[in-house]
Parts: sequence; C-alpha cells; structure tokens
Amino acid sequence: MSEQTVQIKTAGKILQSPCGPIIHGLEDVLIKSTSISDIDGEKGILWYRGYRIEDLARHSTYEEVAYLILYGKLPNKKELEDFTNRLKTYRDLNSATIEIIKNLSKAHPMFAIESAVAAEGAFDEDNLKLAEALKVGRYKAEEKELAYRVAEKLIAKMPTIVAYHYRFSRGLDIIRPRRDLSHAANFLYMMFGKDPDPLATKGIELYLILHADHEVPASTFTAHVVASTLSDMYSAVAAAVAALKGPLHGGANEMAVRGYLEIGDPSKAKEVVEAATKPGGPKLMGVGHRVYKAYDPRAKIFKEFSREYVTKFGDPKKIFAVASAIEQEILNHPYFQQRRLFPNVDFWSGIAFYYMGIPYEYFTPIFAVSRVVGWVAHILEYWENNRIFRPRACYVGPHDLQYIPIEQR
Amino acid sequence: MSEQTVQIKTAGKILQSPCGPIIHGLEDVLIKSTSISDIDGEKGILWYRGYRIEDLARHSTYEEVAYLILYGKLPNKKELEDFTNRLKTYRDLNSATIEIIKNLSKAHPMFAIESAVAAEGAFDEDNLKLAEALKVGRYKAEEKELAYRVAEKLIAKMPTIVAYHYRFSRGLDIIRPRRDLSHAANFLYMMFGKDPDPLATKGIELYLILHADHEVPASTFTAHVVASTLSDMYSAVAAAVAALKGPLHGGANEMAVRGYLEIGDPSKAKEVVEAATKPGGPKLMGVGHRVYKAYDPRAKIFKEFSREYVTKFGDPKKIFAVASAIEQEILNHPYFQQRRLFPNVDFWSGIAFYYMGIPYEYFTPIFAVSRVVGWVAHILEYWENNRIFRPRACYVGPHDLQYIPIEQR
Repeated sequence: MSEQTVQIKTAGKILQSPCGPIIHGLEDVLIKSTSISDIDGEKGILWYRGYRIEDLARHSTYEEVAYLILYGKLPNKKELEDFTNRLKTYRDLNSATIEIIKNLSKAHPMFAIESAVAAEGAFDEDNLKLAEALKVGRYKAEEKELAYRVAEKLIAKMPTIVAYHYRFSRGLDIIRPRRDLSHAANFLYMMFGKDPDPLATKGIELYLILHADHEVPASTFTAHVVASTLSDMYSAVAAAVAALKGPLHGGANEMAVRGYLEIGDPSKAKEVVEAATKPGGPKLMGVGHRVYKAYDPRAKIFKEFSREYVTKFGDPKKIFAVASAIEQEILNHPYFQQRRLFPNVDFWSGIAFYYMGIPYEYFTPIFAVSRVVGWVAHILEYWENNRIFRPRACYVGPHDLQYIPIEQR
Repeated sequence: MSEQTVQIKTAGKILQSPCGPIIHGLEDVLIKSTSISDIDGEKGILWYRGYRIEDLARHSTYEEVAYLILYGKLPNKKELEDFTNRLKTYRDLNSATIEIIKNLSKAHPMFAIESAVAAEGAFDEDNLKLAEALKVGRYKAEEKELAYRVAEKLIAKMPTIVAYHYRFSRGLDIIRPRRDLSHAANFLYMMFGKDPDPLATKGIELYLILHADHEVPASTFTAHVVASTLSDMYSAVAAAVAALKGPLHGGANEMAVRGYLEIGDPSKAKEVVEAATKPGGPKLMGVGHRVYKAYDPRAKIFKEFSREYVTKFGDPKKIFAVASAIEQEILNHPYFQQRRLFPNVDFWSGIAFYYMGIPYEYFTPIFAVSRVVGWVAHILEYWENNRIFRPRACYVGPHDLQYIPIEQR
C-alpha cells in the first residue's frame, strides 16, 4: 500500500524524531471504533453500551452489567438466568491451576493471578479449540461462539483465582464456590467463608459494576495487542493483569487509603493539601485523571456508598472523615481548580474495602475481577476486524559499525 | 495541555471514524526513538546497535550479542567474562517456579512459560525491590542498576524455563544448568542431557543471535505497554511471551516445516507455489514480511546454515530440498516479484531445529529464549523516558439509553 499522511489530534506530549513526530504514550491516538463504553471527560460521564453508570449502579447487578458489556444489550429474564447459571458452572478451576496458586501463596497476588490465568488457559478445551482455529485464520460463527464461551469462563473464574490466593496466603483451606450465591456474594463467601453482610455484598457489587469497563487504558490496550496476534484470550487477559499491576494503572486506591491512615485526623487536611501544591511536595493519591477533567462519576457513587458504610459500621480509623476533609480542601483550592484536578474513583473506592477487612494487596486483584469483562469484550470487538499491532520506533543510533575482534577492544 | 494536530505517515490501512482517522494496527506509528536495532526493509538489512547481523552471526556469540543489545556496545574481554559469569549464576529457578512448570507439564509450553515467568518475578528480590521503588516513582542510579540486574536474570532464566518444561512434558527429570557451558550449549544440554554436537550448538547460537531483537513487533510492543504502567519487568516479559504465542507473530517457522513435510517432494514445488497465488488458495508459510520488502537478511544466514547442517547430517525428509525448490519458484514467480514477497526468516529457521530433534511446540519457546534480550533492552530504554500508553477508542454507540426494569424487557 502506498504511504499516506494522517492527521491525528492529541493533547499529549509530542517528541520529535528524525522519522517524524512521536505522540508520547500514544495519548489520544485512536486504535479502533468501539460501542462498549464511552467517557465524557469534560462533563464527567461514563456510559456502558449507552447506559449511564449511575443507572446501572442503582438498578443493576454485576451479572447484568457483564451481560450488557459482553452482548451489547440488557438481558431479558431468561437470558440473564441462563447467563448467570453458566457463570456459576464455570467458576471452578483446574486442579493444576489450584496447585499453582498454592505454589504462589507467598507471592503478591497479582503475580499469582497472571500466572494462574495463563495456566488455566492451557486447560480450557474451548480455548484450545479456538486457538487451533485461529492458527489457520478461521473465525466464523462456530469460533465466535467458542470465543464468547471462553470470555464467560474468564469472567466466572477470576473471583475464584483471587479468593483462592487469599485463602492460601493466610494458610487457610480454600472454599469452593457456592451455586446459590451471586457473583459478588460468592466472591466474599470464597474469601471469608461466611454468608456476607448485605452491605458488604452491595459494596463489592458496586465496585465490580463501576470498574467493569473504561474504554482503553493500558491494561485493556495490552489485551488488544496480545489478542491481535491471535494468541488466546487467557493469554491476553493474563497480560492485561500484568499491566493492571503497574502503580501508574491499578493500585492507587490502596495508596489513597494508606495516605488517609497516615494523616490520621481531618484537622490536618488543609496542611496536607497545601503541601501537595508545592513543587516536589508529597503527592495526593486518587486526585486527577488522564481523561476526566471533571468530578469522576464513579467517585461520587463510591463516596455515597462509603458514607453509607461508615454510617452503619462507624469510622474508627477516621479514614472517611480524613478523605472528606481532603476532598473539601481540594475542591476549594485554586491550584486544583485551575488544573481541573478532582478526586477520582481511587480516592473513594478503597475505604469500604478497608473496613470490610480486605487486605490492601487484594484491592487491585478485585479490580481485575471486575475489569475482566471489559478486557474480554474489547478483545471480542477487536477480533471482528483484527489487525496485528505493529508500530515503529525511530532509529537514532549509528549504522554499519565495524566489528572489532574482542582482543582489540 | 492544549490539543495539537500531528501528521503521521503510514503505509497501513486507514479506518474512518467520527473522531478522526484510525491507523489500523498502528502500522508505522512511531512510539519512541530507539538505538537498539534498525531494519532497512527496502534493502533487507538488520543492525543491532549499529552492527550488521551478518557480522555478528559470523564472529559473535549470543552472550556477546546480548551484552551489545543490553549495554549498547561490544564488551571487552573482562566485561564479557563478568557478564557471562553473571548469566551463569542466574540460570537457576525458584523451586516454586519449578513446581509450576511441572504442574503445566501437559500444557503447551508457551502457556507454561507465561505462567513461569510471572511466577519467577514474585521471587526475585531485586525485581520486588525495584517494583517498590517504581511504586513511589523513584528510578535513579540505584534502581537502574537493579533494573539491569533483573534484565540479566530474565535472559539467564528463560532457557531453563523452556528446557525444564520440555523435560517434564516428556516425563523426564530436569537437568540442572552446567556452569562450564555457554548459553547456547547449556540450553541444548538441559534439553537433551548430553554434550551437544558442535554444529547443533552453532545452529542454536545462530538462531539466538538472529532473533535477539527486531525493533517493536507486537511482543516487544506489549512489553512496552505493560512496563509503561511501571509494572515489573517479569510481568512485562510474561506479557510479551503471551503476544509472541500468537500465530500472527511467532510460530510461522513451525508451520513452514510442517508444510515442507506435507509437500514431501521438491517436484511438487511449482504446483504448490502456483496454487498459493490463486484467490483462496493455500497460504505459503514464511513468505512475505510486514517490514521487509527484500530478502530477509536472517533468512539468508539460516539457509546457509541449514545447507551446512543437511550436508553433514543428510536431508532424509527432504525438507531442505522442498524448501529450496519452493524458494526458487517464489523468486522467479511474477506474483511474488510484483508484491515483493520474499522468503522470510521463518521460511528457513525451522529446518535445522527439526533435524536436531526439537519438537515443533518448542520452536516458539526458543524464539522467546532469544528475544527476551530485546524485550528487556526495550523496556530499559523506554523507562529512561517513560509515559504510560493511553490511546483512545472512538465511541460509535448510543448515549443515555433508558434503563428498563428486567420485567419489562
């Protein structure tokens, strides 16, 4: 094909090179058209398949939202029932995968999840059958059916992987999934082994709903790049987990909660926020967002939920009080106003987790439990019109250096 | 930052969207400047750090090339000795990782490698220490030293992971690495448990040298995206393995050899090549390349080596003879000439492997054994000026759909 010049709009940083401009981090560069989720960063709106997340948070369940994201429409009663039943059927893991999670009981859970997801892919017959078809370039109705089934399995298995790692890491026996429980409730049950408190279940459910998709951040983009080689879906999801693990991506809610605990008292909020505006000062976690230049719509919902939670169960460590005070200072401070830096989802999403007794290191794994649906939906969408990712780097080094024998170096 | 328009040149396919043009697969889009490797696709030249691969293939060793790619210059005697000794020290795996590989003895090796690399990262103290520093945004001299050490460990451990999987997959005991052997020789030793034939060692060494880097194909790009989140280097490499696994990326040399075996006799070459030019006809594997529009310089070297190999050991399955005949037909056929489709590296690189007794499913793993040096070198380069990858997707679906209760759907 002959060379063309394409005009790309970006608010990102441009690096110059002899080969042409480089958009650092590919900021704002379009990789595809999508009908999965949309963000209005100016107004602070997030839609899944056209539905506002506020509506879904209020009325829906994770299962329904997962169906919506995967299949593009809200299910009717029968469809939801069938889907929910399939998810329940797929929750168990291969015994080799369970052994692997056990072998990694001392490891940070994100390493274990990467490892376990890749491993489980090797045992899923549908995944292997699909991989064989993709190898010869076949992706028709039959293969798509396989692909959706594999996607559902990944959604179903992720909570089990995370909960099993938690159990092994504490030297506890694993707790097999229970078919009578919803996705969210079963997850808490597999973690803690008792019928979960309804408000805790609501909290996890909200979290799972509100993190289910967010267009194409680094983890979802990673899933695209891996899947574009026609590698299998488990491998693409394992790679997405690897990206989510990065502190610039997942993990900020843990840092935010740690920060509130360290600050300890709302009276210090003014001083802390002021310090964060100084060059080289301590950074406030969970503030500002690459896409949102308005109040993150997810943050609002978590704030309300956190309030509900601490109203019922109390705020002994004062983290809700500290967070509220910091937020007030930020919203009123010209530094943050001018830069349009608002509390983001991570600012509020860790508080209830903390009080539920979920250890810090499982905050990002639960992100994966939710986001897996976004990853697989985007893979399925990209495969409809697949093209392997093959960008370029501009070579700026020397050419044709003379090889000098080692004795003469 | 305010929005800018950037002009990007591409020979790729442009998809239109309401948000602007989409360069499908980001073909030709620049992601960074590099001084690691350069490809002249028009002339068929590949350089590592300014050295032509022909010179390196003729004079160098994998260790020397790995040093060159990692550190940017050819080592002197002392530097090479120290580097080689460090690699030897790092070859062993954590016992939990060995258990994981064993658990995956029945799995395709690529799944096991993904899983094992992620797992090993959880036990490497340097990797964890580096990850902690990255978490708070620190990447100075001390952290860079750690990062290079982690990079060397990944290079050193990859052959062990692959060889151990091979042993377990055959129900054999693993063979611990031997310090008196070179990287290539030790790999063959850990695979087959005997002092390797010098020509076989040369073949593996050549393969490792010639696949060590190739700018930013999908696997290397995946490593960038994951590492850009400041996730750890093992996770980024595990993700790169996941991408390499894809049949559109790694794996073509296996398909090429299978093809030659199936064709069976050089007399059929004309007919096979002719059929491949017909719409919907069978595809010839290892022909054409997204970047090379000339004879792939690596293919030339492998062809010579394969000839040397079969001259010494014979060509009982006639795969060299079949490949040679097919190549002749391709080079003389107007269809391939007009489209500038030449045999690529995969066309020739599998033949010697096949005769060495390396099973098909280990062809791509050996690719990973080689390419790991490119992956880590690119991660180190990108971290010098890191920016998280955050492209966009253009939303083309509906907005503000009304949530209808499930009973009314």
